[in-house]
Amino acid sequence: MAEIDIGLGKSARQGITLDQVALVPSRRTRDLDKVDLSWQIDAYRVDLPFLTSPMDSVTTPERAGEVDALGGLGVLDLEGVWARHEDPSAALAEVAEMDDVEMARARLRALYDAPVNHDLVTERIKAMHAAGAYAAGSVSPKRVASMADTLLRAELDLLVISGTVISAEHVSDADDTLNLKQFVRELETPVIVGGCASYRAALHLMRTGAAGVLVGIDGGRSATTGSVTGIGSPLATSIADVRAARMRHLDETGVYVHVIADGGLRSGGDIAKAIACGADSVVLGSALAATDGAPGGEWHWGRTAFHPTLPQGDVVRLPSAGTLAEVVSGPTERTDGKANLFGALRQSMAALGFETVKELQSAELVITGG
Amino acid sequence: MAEIDIGLGKSARQGITLDQVALVPSRRTRDLDKVDLSWQIDAYRVDLPFLTSPMDSVTTPERAGEVDALGGLGVLDLEGVWARHEDPSAALAEVAEMDDVEMARARLRALYDAPVNHDLVTERIKAMHAAGAYAAGSVSPKRVASMADTLLRAELDLLVISGTVISAEHVSDADDTLNLKQFVRELETPVIVGGCASYRAALHLMRTGAAGVLVGIDGGRSATTGSVTGIGSPLATSIADVRAARMRHLDETGVYVHVIADGGLRSGGDIAKAIACGADSVVLGSALAATDGAPGGEWHWGRTAFHPTLPQGDVVRLPSAGTLAEVVSGPTERTDGKANLFGALRQSMAALGFETVKELQSAELVITGG
Amino acid sequence: MAEIDIGLGKSARQGITLDQVALVPSRRTRDLDKVDLSWQIDAYRVDLPFLTSPMDSVTTPERAGEVDALGGLGVLDLEGVWARHEDPSAALAEVAEMDDVEMARARLRALYDAPVNHDLVTERIKAMHAAGAYAAGSVSPKRVASMADTLLRAELDLLVISGTVISAEHVSDADDTLNLKQFVRELETPVIVGGCASYRAALHLMRTGAAGVLVGIDGGRSATTGSVTGIGSPLATSIADVRAARMRHLDETGVYVHVIADGGLRSGGDIAKAIACGADSVVLGSALAATDGAPGGEWHWGRTAFHPTLPQGDVVRLPSAGTLAEVVSGPTERTDGKANLFGALRQSMAALGFETVKELQSAELVITGG
Amino acid sequence: MAEIDIGLGKSARQGITLDQVALVPSRRTRDLDKVDLSWQIDAYRVDLPFLTSPMDSVTTPERAGEVDALGGLGVLDLEGVWARHEDPSAALAEVAEMDDVEMARARLRALYDAPVNHDLVTERIKAMHAAGAYAAGSVSPKRVASMADTLLRAELDLLVISGTVISAEHVSDADDTLNLKQFVRELETPVIVGGCASYRAALHLMRTGAAGVLVGIDGGRSATTGSVTGIGSPLATSIADVRAARMRHLDETGVYVHVIADGGLRSGGDIAKAIACGADSVVLGSALAATDGAPGGEWHWGRTAFHPTLPQGDVVRLPSAGTLAEVVSGPTERTDGKANLFGALRQSMAALGFETVKELQSAELVITGG
Repeated sequence: MAEIDIGLGKSARQGITLDQVALVPSRRTRDLDKVDLSWQIDAYRVDLPFLTSPMDSVTTPERAGEVDALGGLGVLDLEGVWARHEDPSAALAEVAEMDDVEMARARLRALYDAPVNHDLVTERIKAMHAAGAYAAGSVSPKRVASMADTLLRAELDLLVISGTVISAEHVSDADDTLNLKQFVRELETPVIVGGCASYRAALHLMRTGAAGVLVGIDGGRSATTGSVTGIGSPLATSIADVRAARMRHLDETGVYVHVIADGGLRSGGDIAKAIACGADSVVLGSALAATDGAPGGEWHWGRTAFHPTLPQGDVVRLPSAGTLAEVVSGPTERTDGKANLFGALRQSMAALGFETVKELQSAELVITGG
Repeated sequence: MAEIDIGLGKSARQGITLDQVALVPSRRTRDLDKVDLSWQIDAYRVDLPFLTSPMDSVTTPERAGEVDALGGLGVLDLEGVWARHEDPSAALAEVAEMDDVEMARARLRALYDAPVNHDLVTERIKAMHAAGAYAAGSVSPKRVASMADTLLRAELDLLVISGTVISAEHVSDADDTLNLKQFVRELETPVIVGGCASYRAALHLMRTGAAGVLVGIDGGRSATTGSVTGIGSPLATSIADVRAARMRHLDETGVYVHVIADGGLRSGGDIAKAIACGADSVVLGSALAATDGAPGGEWHWGRTAFHPTLPQGDVVRLPSAGTLAEVVSGPTERTDGKANLFGALRQSMAALGFETVKELQSAELVITGG
Repeated sequence: MAEIDIGLGKSARQGITLDQVALVPSRRTRDLDKVDLSWQIDAYRVDLPFLTSPMDSVTTPERAGEVDALGGLGVLDLEGVWARHEDPSAALAEVAEMDDVEMARARLRALYDAPVNHDLVTERIKAMHAAGAYAAGSVSPKRVASMADTLLRAELDLLVISGTVISAEHVSDADDTLNLKQFVRELETPVIVGGCASYRAALHLMRTGAAGVLVGIDGGRSATTGSVTGIGSPLATSIADVRAARMRHLDETGVYVHVIADGGLRSGGDIAKAIACGADSVVLGSALAATDGAPGGEWHWGRTAFHPTLPQGDVVRLPSAGTLAEVVSGPTERTDGKANLFGALRQSMAALGFETVKELQSAELVITGG
Repeated sequence: MAEIDIGLGKSARQGITLDQVALVPSRRTRDLDKVDLSWQIDAYRVDLPFLTSPMDSVTTPERAGEVDALGGLGVLDLEGVWARHEDPSAALAEVAEMDDVEMARARLRALYDAPVNHDLVTERIKAMHAAGAYAAGSVSPKRVASMADTLLRAELDLLVISGTVISAEHVSDADDTLNLKQFVRELETPVIVGGCASYRAALHLMRTGAAGVLVGIDGGRSATTGSVTGIGSPLATSIADVRAARMRHLDETGVYVHVIADGGLRSGGDIAKAIACGADSVVLGSALAATDGAPGGEWHWGRTAFHPTLPQGDVVRLPSAGTLAEVVSGPTERTDGKANLFGALRQSMAALGFETVKELQSAELVITGG
């Protein structure tokens, strides 16, 4: 790898962001109907290669059903407002009506002060099943051990264990520290885990037995992790590195672990470039928060925004780019790539001559100047 | 070529844009009248090395005649409003008067809803001939096969087959898919084809028997292809690569295929730099839309702006930089290089000591800092 | 080291700023309470690895005590307003109330016109002792020889000899030119000296017997040294180079000299990245001037702003980011990393898996794109 | 030299601008009074290493005298308004009073329509002599042959032959084309010639027998050469390259030709960095146009702004940074480096430990990040 000297005896790799790359056409093109966007992870096959971000401004049980119908995979935050309140709809609707970010922040903070209720978690999972959708939900590493029984009993289909930075080796004095490897191996439910950003961290996460890893540690468009902690990783580089870990893990074990890009992807171009770097699928957060009737109206936030002593994210305003359906698969009249995301991906693959998402991973990229 | 690691096992070339380069003077200078700007492609010789962009906001049959008189080559969109309406002048004049982009977009969308009429195509070609100009027109790959007879019968002088990304090998189930190689070989009319952006894609287009290839896939100043699809290619790099394909094709076949830079060139400096990278000629779109009495007034658009489900371009506003004559060959009082484009090219070549456009292709470039 | 050609026969190293790097997670994480932030220099051990900048808009005798209580090391400017006026509080309060920068500048200029009074210096040192804090103070190279007796008699605990650029070898005709090496060797008080920015300059400063060196010559957020003199040094590179000097000096002498990053650090991320480049500790100036009740209210300035013929800094406005305690160690509701600086450092180290500040110096960095 | 691939078979050098570099302190510093700024070219010795730009918004006969008194070398445009009008003072004062750029441009255009009068040229040279200053003046290559007798008879001390790009080998059919080599060799007056930007162009200019060459082809802050012609050259690279030509020419001939940086230098830092790249001296244009009572008030322009068919510069507004004396040698209260330019240079050299301008040419530079 290209190492750049920072100073005498200290060097760093040059990282590349998605904004710095572009896709280069090959010598072949194809018709749009000769492009296949489907994705299969574990037993689950979906028409479009995306998960929703497990954020309360993106996914509700009801939205999970709509996403399922559109061909994606909705992931609910199982520690969020739907796990803390019998019916948070009215409270979210109130927030959606607010013009002032301070008021919105205060109201949301209060919502997250309520405790997580396992019975509600069970109820949410059942509601997703009832809506005919896969039930996928997200829990943090700290809480996952204590919630495991609840999740199993409720027959969660897919578990996402997520945090800003997740490792397979956590140093703690606490008695109940999660042994991620043991936990994932013993769980019957398939697990996606992350975020991570490097070859080694990803490889260790893959060795836990996870079905997929989330790549990206910057937390997307509402996060401020970089300013607060100095931690960051240019996404194109992270995806490519984790793809290399996927190849090694496949070589060692015969198991293909999915690489899922997670970090502020907004446009069809972003998605195509993330896949070309090596992703099998993507997480959409802000892109779906910016839709008509989103849970928080135009407000978008992550749970780290409400940390009591050190928030690493904010409540941000995102104007809608259309209905959920329009943003996912069109049609749209928007010209900036923020709607009809998978129509755009299909268009991109047709122009590049690729038939499947897997083939797109071999696309040629160019570093754009400037 | 310099490859930059994106991550482990994935690299990309460093692409360079025209904005990143500048021309370096040599040890020689020359008088302005010792500079020759003429260009010859196939049987056609013009005084100035440019084509107009086949966009309805740039080229009308009447404007094609004016461009011819100024020394350039006007190219009409043979699927545009002039191929769909008996006389679109009044409708365009209406659009030109509009202040609101939404209204302009709606009015234009309606204009493109009318079907293409082969009789009108014939009429336009004859009108260009009648005006004493070369008749050059542009058609998309999808439609070119069905229009071939019409074009031949109307004695089109030069055919431009153009799309965002064109390849010599298109995958399709449709029965009437264009076999570009066979089509170009059999057609008596000389063909220019593109856009393309890479050595291999260009080489395959050259092998179809085309007289010239268009380099550039970003679609110019009104396009949003990059955001929508992630596809892009820094123009300086694309031109240089396609020039390398021209050299190989010349070595293999003895046939010199012209490299024509097409991508948002606005100033005299842009044109000079495109040629120094290897172009024989340039396409001017927004540069000529920004003239007094342009077909759409200050509005500029490409046909992709009106795609029903996924537009890849917008209707943008461009204030005029002068009359068509002033913008092409001056005189001007403007100081930003957006008028007297070929006076500026002449000035540049004089200061650099080059006599012909071909010589300018060997100019020394420097990557400018920052 | 990577040398970049400027032109034929002249090259330069590529320098890297802190803004260009980010910290990369490893395969391990740890709990926040398994992180140790303490720092020891000479006989002095503090809970948090920072000094205050010896600027009158940052440190007063009273603030030094508060900083001590919070776990840091307060450094008073012993040539500033507290060394020139019996009680400058009222005057500073006046400045704090001013809205107009010209008025603030004029009032401050007048304050610095009064002479330095050694009795006041003695009094300030005793006041810091009385407040139970370490007494640390800063003097310029020009004045330090003449003040040495005063400082010794008042039992200053730690002396900072500071200027924009300090060298161990100063060329002068003046009879009383400071021989830095002799001075530091003979002084009983431990000395920190700087700024410096390169391996050789730092090595020579270390050889004077200093306990620590300040790295950074740009003077922080209120300075304009770069525009005025052209002198500058990207901080990540400077810190790494001086760390290399520390290693050589340790190898030659067995003495560990502390590397202290000094140059406009504002956020928790800045601090973490400076340490990862090789710093043992940091100087906080503007970060602490931007607190409730700061000495100059929202105004921040360095003494170079009042140079009679060539100012190299300005009086700038910094809105408060919270109380001093909140900015240093939280809690905060701010999401931009400008408060709870050391909570953020702790969070960063936990996410990166490091137990001590020393370990963080081995963190992997990535150059961020763009 | 580092070559960067633009594309297959076409590469370019990476150029560096002054903004991208900073000066790195060495291990030595010195007192301000141990710094010597003087400069000698041919028989002329001045206290400060600068020429004024031969622009009517910078230099008048009267200002040339003031500059002489301040220690610099004033250069009058001998084809400008002072060579065309008996007394242009009133007209310039009118322009200075105008608020509207169009009006200013029109008034100036009219002033340059008057013919050059050799008697007035003679008078201006004598006036400079009478004011006790060196008489230095600038003429374009086209006109210099016909003016040579006038200049000699009037006993011009120093002749500057200047244009945007000057070469030693000009291709022309005109009978009276200047043979620069023959002309300079035969002229008794020492000649400075330029602009140029490359090793070879500079070497050929040096071989004409010139005493100095001007480096820089972008024409400073009022020029738009880059947009118009695409020609440009990052100044740090150009200066370093021409310094290499100076070394070769010195080796071949024993003659030291001065390298004079000319291109929009505004601050003390700019001057110090230009010298560190290899310049012996600098041309100051906009820096001196931005002074109280400048000839055009706050308006600044070059003669290329009034080209009848293709202007390559504009009339721009520059607010004053102080009196001429304050801008050149202070004192100042400005903190941005745009006044007390040579006090700043002295300060820079003291902090870097250099005694003479010649020594500063060996300073270490760093490429600053970003």
